[in-house]
Amino acid sequence: MILQPVTDIAEICARHELKNVVLSPGSRCAPLTIAFARHPEMQVKTVSDERAAAFIGLGMAQISGKASVLVCTSGTASYNYAPAVAEAFYQQIPLLVFTADRPQEWIDQLDGQTIRQTNIYGQHIKKSFNFPPDLQHKDAIWHANRMVSEAINLAHAFPAGPVHINIPLREPFYPNPDEVFSYSKDLKIIRETENDFTLSDKQAANLTEGLKQFRKVLVVPGQQMPDKELEQAISTFCAGNDTVLVSDIISNCFPEKAITHHDVFLTAKNPATEQLQPDLVITFGKSVISKNLKLFLRKSHGLQHWHIQPAGEVADTFQALTTIIRCQPISFFSQVKIENGTENSEKPFSALWQKQNARAEVFLQQFFLNKPFNEFSAYWYAMLALPENSLLHVANSMAVRYANLLGLPANRNITVIANRGTSGIDGCTSTTVGNALESGKITTLFTGDLAFFYDRNGLWHNYLPGNLRIIIFNNQGGGIFRLIDGPANQPELDEFFETRQLLQAENTAKDFGMRYFKCETEEELAQILPQFYENTGAAILEIMTNNLQNAAFFKEFKNSFETN
Amino acid sequence: MILQPVTDIAEICARHELKNVVLSPGSRCAPLTIAFARHPEMQVKTVSDERAAAFIGLGMAQISGKASVLVCTSGTASYNYAPAVAEAFYQQIPLLVFTADRPQEWIDQLDGQTIRQTNIYGQHIKKSFNFPPDLQHKDAIWHANRMVSEAINLAHAFPAGPVHINIPLREPFYPNPDEVFSYSKDLKIIRETENDFTLSDKQAANLTEGLKQFRKVLVVPGQQMPDKELEQAISTFCAGNDTVLVSDIISNCFPEKAITHHDVFLTAKNPATEQLQPDLVITFGKSVISKNLKLFLRKSHGLQHWHIQPAGEVADTFQALTTIIRCQPISFFSQVKIENGTENSEKPFSALWQKQNARAEVFLQQFFLNKPFNEFSAYWYAMLALPENSLLHVANSMAVRYANLLGLPANRNITVIANRGTSGIDGCTSTTVGNALESGKITTLFTGDLAFFYDRNGLWHNYLPGNLRIIIFNNQGGGIFRLIDGPANQPELDEFFETRQLLQAENTAKDFGMRYFKCETEEELAQILPQFYENTGAAILEIMTNNLQNAAFFKEFKNSFETN
Repeated sequence: MILQPVTDIAEICARHELKNVVLSPGSRCAPLTIAFARHPEMQVKTVSDERAAAFIGLGMAQISGKASVLVCTSGTASYNYAPAVAEAFYQQIPLLVFTADRPQEWIDQLDGQTIRQTNIYGQHIKKSFNFPPDLQHKDAIWHANRMVSEAINLAHAFPAGPVHINIPLREPFYPNPDEVFSYSKDLKIIRETENDFTLSDKQAANLTEGLKQFRKVLVVPGQQMPDKELEQAISTFCAGNDTVLVSDIISNCFPEKAITHHDVFLTAKNPATEQLQPDLVITFGKSVISKNLKLFLRKSHGLQHWHIQPAGEVADTFQALTTIIRCQPISFFSQVKIENGTENSEKPFSALWQKQNARAEVFLQQFFLNKPFNEFSAYWYAMLALPENSLLHVANSMAVRYANLLGLPANRNITVIANRGTSGIDGCTSTTVGNALESGKITTLFTGDLAFFYDRNGLWHNYLPGNLRIIIFNNQGGGIFRLIDGPANQPELDEFFETRQLLQAENTAKDFGMRYFKCETEEELAQILPQFYENTGAAILEIMTNNLQNAAFFKEFKNSFETN
Repeated sequence: MILQPVTDIAEICARHELKNVVLSPGSRCAPLTIAFARHPEMQVKTVSDERAAAFIGLGMAQISGKASVLVCTSGTASYNYAPAVAEAFYQQIPLLVFTADRPQEWIDQLDGQTIRQTNIYGQHIKKSFNFPPDLQHKDAIWHANRMVSEAINLAHAFPAGPVHINIPLREPFYPNPDEVFSYSKDLKIIRETENDFTLSDKQAANLTEGLKQFRKVLVVPGQQMPDKELEQAISTFCAGNDTVLVSDIISNCFPEKAITHHDVFLTAKNPATEQLQPDLVITFGKSVISKNLKLFLRKSHGLQHWHIQPAGEVADTFQALTTIIRCQPISFFSQVKIENGTENSEKPFSALWQKQNARAEVFLQQFFLNKPFNEFSAYWYAMLALPENSLLHVANSMAVRYANLLGLPANRNITVIANRGTSGIDGCTSTTVGNALESGKITTLFTGDLAFFYDRNGLWHNYLPGNLRIIIFNNQGGGIFRLIDGPANQPELDEFFETRQLLQAENTAKDFGMRYFKCETEEELAQILPQFYENTGAAILEIMTNNLQNAAFFKEFKNSFETN
């Protein structure tokens, strides 16, 4: 039986310019499956593991900026979306989640695939709607149609995020042969205009005035996608003054003079660190990755923290938040001026930061040469091999830390993506697949073995894109636990922290028809990297290293900078 | 730093005779990891994928009847437990879920692996506790200790289920070298006595009186573990009267004369079906698997339904529920008598049922002979090969349906387990691993390829038991969608319902060091089954079939019974 308002969900999504749909198989969700699969403007894929499906949808939305549509059947299918929904919630990525459900009267009646789906994503969803189960009354149809527009608008409203529509459906689920399947033509669509969130002249003047009291100003962008216009505005904002831009790798904000090696030099052991303390830090965007930067700012005495964010809850990341500025970052950096008396004069504060950054740069350039091959040096070489105009997805947990320590190679126009909303290892592979599918650019995943095998089902579908490249840094366990203080000294290290695992990815590559390369030395790596990138087809490069050597090398790395 | 009340969680669990602990790696949960890993009475395993870890814990608890302990780190790790938590909730299996968390002040501050974990399992948990974050005050310590006893008691109180303790922890997480690690000796433990839930003599007399009005009585046990004493009591209850026991395969209740082929003969097409309608159905236990039985009872005119359940919400499975009886089934069947006038006389109602059951038995014995090899016939042969005193785990979705149609081979003392709380395919492999680990018996999983690969991570750890046997009925997709009406007629069948997938399990077997067998014919299957079972070591047997042939054969099966 065709339920017209269910069929029209796809049409409303299309009218809102949504495009990417990830389905998972099921019978209860058949009316939705059919509605999306038959829609000529929708790009529909099916992925069996809902956990992976949701992360693939997330990965596509990270690139497109438009909500991906997810559709699953009733029962625990919906719970398998939860990790990606939470990630989308904290990373502020729009997702439109449709879960098929039994009608209310059949909940808790011991029928198959039936759980309590209303509000199932708890506090990790912008809103959870319930689709009307009976669609005879015209108000119910108005409600059903309206709800879809509302959900789409809400998913994209700042801060973007996931929105859920739970859809109770009664049998029969399939159109009869004599029914005519079509989308309604006269649907009412509700559109929401984008808000620029600009400062008024008066607000800008007040902020300009307020800035006068500060001499040492840091600008720290959180996670965001590249934005050349914003980058230029920040560059101009900083250039005329003694203001320093400190950019984590996931900020995608690297104008000339950006500090990128702060994770190397902002250590407690570095005697220069204290001189670098600012009196004001200005932030925008989402999370900051550098633990050294966070700890440094939390310890900065008398620090004030201005955070620019158009709407929504604001985190007090450095325990120093004093001012929340409600506008778009581009508005702040182009409308507000720093007039702190250092314009056109010497820039002592910037000079201190630039000196440390340059020192770290030289250190990094030299440190990896002529060292025994290990995980961190493999990251170094792999980073240098990243193609221009490509995407880099860095997995949690060590991959993203190594990457932030090393920084990107200069002038390659590489976009960096990472699931730093919740920083889980549960969906990095799937998310990268979504990135690759949507961007069409060469997309490289840097991942540890635990994160890779955890989310192996991200490869289990019929849409593996040829532009996907996965580099697995395989140390046969959770190497991070040998690198951080604490667990390394416990007798449980091997079994319960590091969690030794023996899998290598060759069989996985075979399973999914991917090219496979393996290396254990610097020479092999150098030889393989060009083929890995130049030839076409999805590929896995597995770099085997020894976790004891990795730990010793990383310790040497941490000790060497201060003493060099 | 040692937090004594956190360490003592393990001691309290041990004093309550809990034994099985499944950890997943993490740093935030280190104090819990250490507390359990060092406890001499705990059997601790570590499984990296939390979704699989939770289902493995569930599988152990299904066998032991005692709560498995789960421990994970903060963030989406806890959400990956959710599918198994929901399954445990509806299947009424005790689980004790510990999730490490950041302290409240760091929630929503963009720190890594931080989500809103309080009440994260929503309505699928018996209770969600929050461990006190500060443990200096003596009342806080009393509270912390008490909470663990309360949670354990609640997990086991009828109906059993999952209970959650969220544990906010501040750094440092690891004991210093100079700290003495020990469990407290003088912990206060709160114990709850088991309740027999027996009927009073007066209640039993009233029910005996009430039964007199019924002539045609069915007893339908829902899902439960084997209980010989109960089986005997039911057998006696039925034997003296014209009362029929109808046992699904997951009821594990098969005394002589139990009807086991109802799924074959209770079809709308069978002209005998209407005569079989009871005027009373008595049920106990959890879910019923046979859709034919459910539809038959829902259509039975004037049916009354008595359900026996000591406590908790009761489902109205057949839309006919009239009386809820609050006692243990054993109490009902041994204290209440049927005196409906047919004792020692003819049993016309039973005779009708026995006739149909015998007819179905003969049909099954003959139907599979000399047929082209296909999935359903492979189930038939595999079922016949199950060893005595072994466990059979039937996966969702077709595996459990085929198994229920076929019934168990007689007198083998086989226990059947299935995740029929929510009927998901998301944890069948992991749950079977838990069954095998805890039972020590040969444990066979019957699974389709989608369910198997979905939960492949159930094999990804260092504890694969030698008694594990997995039979994959690989039709390269969700074969069920070709077997049920509706989707088979849609143009989306191949891609979006059946979801063609090309994986075979040989590489998986290699990855996990399992013996691997593959067959495509009846002869190969007959040859392989003895080695598969007789030789030691975990093994996968993959039976390749063609989904078009499977669908044709299943159609023939359904049409043949009525016309034979």
